[in-house]
Amino acid sequence: MNAQLTALRRHLGEISDLQSIAGLLFWDQQTMMPPAGALNRGDSLGTLARVIHARETDPMLARLLDALEPWAAEQDPDSDDARLIFWTRRDFEKAVRVPEDLAAEMTKAKALGQHAWLEARAANDFKPFRAALAHHVELRHRYVACFTGFDHPYDVLLDDFEPGLTIAELRPLFAELRDALVPLVAAAGNPDQPRNDGAFQGEFDAEAQRVAVLDVLEAVGFDPDSWRLDPTLHPFASGGGIDDIRITTHYEPGDLDSLFATMHEYGHGLYEHQVAAELDRGPLASGVSLGLHESQSRMWENLVGRSLPFWRMFYPRLQEKFAGALGGIDLDAFYRSVNQVQPSLIRIHADEVTYNMHIILRFELEQEIIGGRVALADLPEEWNRRMWDYLGIEVPDDAHGVLQDVHWSGGSMGYFPTYTLGNVMSVQIWERLREDLPELDEQVERGEFAPLREWLGEHLHRHGRKYTPEETLAKVVGGPIETAPYLRYLRDKHGVPAA
Amino acid sequence: MNAQLTALRRHLGEISDLQSIAGLLFWDQQTMMPPAGALNRGDSLGTLARVIHARETDPMLARLLDALEPWAAEQDPDSDDARLIFWTRRDFEKAVRVPEDLAAEMTKAKALGQHAWLEARAANDFKPFRAALAHHVELRHRYVACFTGFDHPYDVLLDDFEPGLTIAELRPLFAELRDALVPLVAAAGNPDQPRNDGAFQGEFDAEAQRVAVLDVLEAVGFDPDSWRLDPTLHPFASGGGIDDIRITTHYEPGDLDSLFATMHEYGHGLYEHQVAAELDRGPLASGVSLGLHESQSRMWENLVGRSLPFWRMFYPRLQEKFAGALGGIDLDAFYRSVNQVQPSLIRIHADEVTYNMHIILRFELEQEIIGGRVALADLPEEWNRRMWDYLGIEVPDDAHGVLQDVHWSGGSMGYFPTYTLGNVMSVQIWERLREDLPELDEQVERGEFAPLREWLGEHLHRHGRKYTPEETLAKVVGGPIETAPYLRYLRDKHGVPAA
Repeated sequence: MNAQLTALRRHLGEISDLQSIAGLLFWDQQTMMPPAGALNRGDSLGTLARVIHARETDPMLARLLDALEPWAAEQDPDSDDARLIFWTRRDFEKAVRVPEDLAAEMTKAKALGQHAWLEARAANDFKPFRAALAHHVELRHRYVACFTGFDHPYDVLLDDFEPGLTIAELRPLFAELRDALVPLVAAAGNPDQPRNDGAFQGEFDAEAQRVAVLDVLEAVGFDPDSWRLDPTLHPFASGGGIDDIRITTHYEPGDLDSLFATMHEYGHGLYEHQVAAELDRGPLASGVSLGLHESQSRMWENLVGRSLPFWRMFYPRLQEKFAGALGGIDLDAFYRSVNQVQPSLIRIHADEVTYNMHIILRFELEQEIIGGRVALADLPEEWNRRMWDYLGIEVPDDAHGVLQDVHWSGGSMGYFPTYTLGNVMSVQIWERLREDLPELDEQVERGEFAPLREWLGEHLHRHGRKYTPEETLAKVVGGPIETAPYLRYLRDKHGVPAA
Repeated sequence: MNAQLTALRRHLGEISDLQSIAGLLFWDQQTMMPPAGALNRGDSLGTLARVIHARETDPMLARLLDALEPWAAEQDPDSDDARLIFWTRRDFEKAVRVPEDLAAEMTKAKALGQHAWLEARAANDFKPFRAALAHHVELRHRYVACFTGFDHPYDVLLDDFEPGLTIAELRPLFAELRDALVPLVAAAGNPDQPRNDGAFQGEFDAEAQRVAVLDVLEAVGFDPDSWRLDPTLHPFASGGGIDDIRITTHYEPGDLDSLFATMHEYGHGLYEHQVAAELDRGPLASGVSLGLHESQSRMWENLVGRSLPFWRMFYPRLQEKFAGALGGIDLDAFYRSVNQVQPSLIRIHADEVTYNMHIILRFELEQEIIGGRVALADLPEEWNRRMWDYLGIEVPDDAHGVLQDVHWSGGSMGYFPTYTLGNVMSVQIWERLREDLPELDEQVERGEFAPLREWLGEHLHRHGRKYTPEETLAKVVGGPIETAPYLRYLRDKHGVPAA
């Protein structure tokens, strides 16, 4: 078996190398590339995607898997090798089922859809985007039809982001959340109060923000030997491998959101950075799913980054850097302001409570779109109605409503739910790790983050993509996803008694 | 033929895309990559090189060329298509002649050689590098043996950098230069005077240098829409395509060399930027040879960037930015200081006259090494003897002598002569273009660089790699390379009468 296993590892190592390159090119495009380079870049990315796809669907891979599977069946099913073969088979079968012409059509529709979306957004009118969205829906159906063994079309879409998750599991989970969160938002939030409690009034110089962000990052574990921080328009984490982690943020002069965005991306980066070295250069060397990835980003952003112990440590240092704007705001007022619950129009600026309502709305609409139960012409109206029902606010126009997110413009559906799954799992993991780290609050307040990082590395990150998301979560918290810890956390934090 | 030509173009387009990616990764490695990313990067670059090599030696390419060559023979031999087929055949035949195991050995020897060189340089002792150099020499001989149709082993090495050039042409050219330059250096230079005439005494803040460099660059034609400028250790030009040009420079606090280094890299970048759009995404979309590339970088660095009209325009702006350091130095003194001839130890810091002596020394030693006429143990001594003969200076140690350059550490031989070829051709081209641009001095003094850029684009850059270097030069200046214009220029500039 040795020769086949070596050949398999070499082939997968090359795919992994090429994907690292794709990660670097994406980062470069969003941070460094001169604008006119877009045309050259489009060609390069297209060629790289074809090279990767050819390797992912190489018939040699099937022959190697055929030869190795009987051997793998006799190994410890939890061994790295057995898992590598399991996931490689799964990835291969998914990749070969999509005909090349459909893949090419989806790629083309993505570019056209984003173009139509940008125009529609600029015109503040959903109509010019409708045809592109209809085409995406048609292509999604053709994509779904490539697969068998799923109970529901939406399960096929979910599987790309959260392998194994089904709508049958998700519906009751999201219904529980919706029923608990609507009254929680009504009790804790007030759409008419000023944002951030009106705390941030001054100017926050971009360079001073960068220094403040790095001060926080280096304290929590950003090591310039393996990490970079750069500005961009829409923050993300990417990079060239487990020792080349690149996070990005965005500096707005009117607030300090860059701090929280950076903590968020730090959570993503740390997950990738702490995958076990043995899994490097292979398909298991990344976070297991978007949901668990988001559990890490949201944990660092919210459970660490919006906690009182954290700001006991960092607020004096922040105040010093922004003496003008923050001089008159004490720690308690600052803490309240960055934890304010306030229904608002735009998902990416939402607080940790109302955020989930934005997701639930999109999840419900995606099901109706895929199920053909909503006419696309009525989508803006459906959006606006739910915004009123769930958050009590009126949507003034399409740009602040149905057109706000990029996801649908590229044909991506089934992605949104992972954001809320991340929120929910982040608190399950947090409760579990506090059992092992009884002095976590004091450690955070002293700026000691190594115990937290190491716990996450040991219990979650090192596994990479070795287990299913469900198995991975069970290894960390001992059971399946559940909403109770998350709802308890929100109620406690915002002083709302259980209904 | 249409289908085969389309298939050929598509295949070559993909190679070109992958090479653009390699260019971006190189740039990233030298400017952006966190240090610990080196291991991931090594894997990615290795895989990318294998992917490119497989496409360059794909038997399908030979079949397409076989089918297309009879057709090409009936086309205008100067048509883009005929030239594309000609160069593709040449590149293919070169690529397939080197066995994969030799290519792999050379790659490995490059990494090991650079490692040994770094250690030897740190120890300031040639001996630890000797074995690695001997291994390189052996590999060079095996490489040479892969090819037929060359008169001299060194011609094979030259051909990789300056296609078609032979040692038979180079020897008399370099002998002429040496015989003319040794007395010119003796007359114009003085090793004991202070560097730059002692002009630069103050501190030159790196950020102020960056602003000054961009001021100059944007005046000569750097457009942020298609170009980037970043700091690095050893300046270079690279990028992701004709509209994604990335130049780099290095800021030392004790001088303004960054300005000249940047003008140099601008010359390289402009050549790549102005290749005809019709040639883009193919093997003809780059400068034709290292020598002609260097003619462009040296032209912008020296013929423009060290000229009096140029500094009449820019010196007041520079003085303003560095009022402390330059306040007491008038234009004439500044001009003299940046044109000072002064024999010195290190090639990369040499002025435009003595620079060639550094190259001639290396060219002579490379022939002796390849010909086995010098024992490697004697190489430092041979180096030092020539430094005394040609420049009248004593080499204190190996780090300031035989170990100073990176080229040999990677096994690269035949590269050095292209630097001096570039100097020589730059003045031939400059004389020619002044005939068409009689007001060039006035234009430069007014900061009008469009006529110069356009002339270079029209007469040289747009051709890319369509013609041989010899044909390309003949198209620009009407004849072959000759030293007289260059020597005349140096004598005029430095006030030395012809011998």
